[in-house]
Amino acid sequence: MSEPFPPTSRTRVVREANRAVYDREAIYQILDEAFVCHVGFTSGGQPFVIPTMFARVGDAIFFHGSAASRMLRNLSAGVRVCVTVTLVDALVLARSIFHHSMNYRSVMVLGTATLIEDRGEKLEALRVISDNLIHGRWDEVRQPTEQELKATAVMKVPIKEASAKIRTGPPKDDTEDYDLPIWAGVLPLITRAQQPVIDPAMRMKADLPASVKKYGRG
Amino acid sequence: MSEPFPPTSRTRVVREANRAVYDREAIYQILDEAFVCHVGFTSGGQPFVIPTMFARVGDAIFFHGSAASRMLRNLSAGVRVCVTVTLVDALVLARSIFHHSMNYRSVMVLGTATLIEDRGEKLEALRVISDNLIHGRWDEVRQPTEQELKATAVMKVPIKEASAKIRTGPPKDDTEDYDLPIWAGVLPLITRAQQPVIDPAMRMKADLPASVKKYGRG
Repeated sequence: MSEPFPPTSRTRVVREANRAVYDREAIYQILDEAFVCHVGFTSGGQPFVIPTMFARVGDAIFFHGSAASRMLRNLSAGVRVCVTVTLVDALVLARSIFHHSMNYRSVMVLGTATLIEDRGEKLEALRVISDNLIHGRWDEVRQPTEQELKATAVMKVPIKEASAKIRTGPPKDDTEDYDLPIWAGVLPLITRAQQPVIDPAMRMKADLPASVKKYGRG
Repeated sequence: MSEPFPPTSRTRVVREANRAVYDREAIYQILDEAFVCHVGFTSGGQPFVIPTMFARVGDAIFFHGSAASRMLRNLSAGVRVCVTVTLVDALVLARSIFHHSMNYRSVMVLGTATLIEDRGEKLEALRVISDNLIHGRWDEVRQPTEQELKATAVMKVPIKEASAKIRTGPPKDDTEDYDLPIWAGVLPLITRAQQPVIDPAMRMKADLPASVKKYGRG
């Protein structure tokens, strides 16, 4: 059995506390279903929020250098970050405007992001980020050169303080509103892959690779 | 013609500057296509990033109180925020791992969020947030009571400093990699509404409302 995350004053869900989840498995499941996170950090008193690809492995999040450039300006021992992942599952259409909502699953991880310096660890982090984006693609393509590895910043955030918020199910209306002749329910939203579009610059025939054929998201 | 946002030292896109967009129309179009934003703020030195429903109207963003509780603890004259909106359009599958990417459109708005106090302005902000979630629903359902209005926090962020990052099109590989026998292309992702699910607690027959029938997202 894995240990839950004890809610801290910083991760305790304040609003709609009934939606709070501190269970490690549940939190990791949400993280693993997503491939984009939003990384928040503060620089010069100003908060910044940057979307980037990521992956969880064990008790850590790895994310890509695309978020790092502004962060890295004031980095040395690490940067305090909030990594937030959000999956929107449905619109919740209540009988009253007030009870309209979304069904969603979101995770907030508070921690310190450090730059991965070790070559092996960086390569492995890139592999898991790639694998989280599209499983199996890593083995189909040209591997990174030493120069490319050097040019890529990868950050690591140990997951020590985390919480999730989950809403599921139908709307919850005020008791008296159930007598109103208003349609209520949920409108599920899903993200699906469409037909792959081959690069017009392809110079030879190439079959659709297994990674794309098997792509499972949505 | 609308004025572009002159890039500031804080909104200038540092990495992949070729993807930067400061054009107001383009930025507003991205904001208007989304209904969830990620709001970043700093509290006690710790950044927080919280997903919430929002809408843009004119040169301002309005978002819902669900993000406000932790923010409001240290609010009076306003809270410095970063509001980030991200639309993921496709996976970009290159011939090399290094050039793998996403096609995406993201906007970052830096500004000060203040709580809307005025009743009329709050009601209008809630209406536009609702309208951005699902057009026309507001007029189909029970309107907010005075008590509900009071219980709802709505924040406003004037859009003064903003930038977008947009990536479109096929992968861009290194010249020599185009000779590799590797399938390259993009895998488009779209979000679609599924069949609506009626609330099992419905007490009467009600036709599917126009707002759900016409729901256009995806």
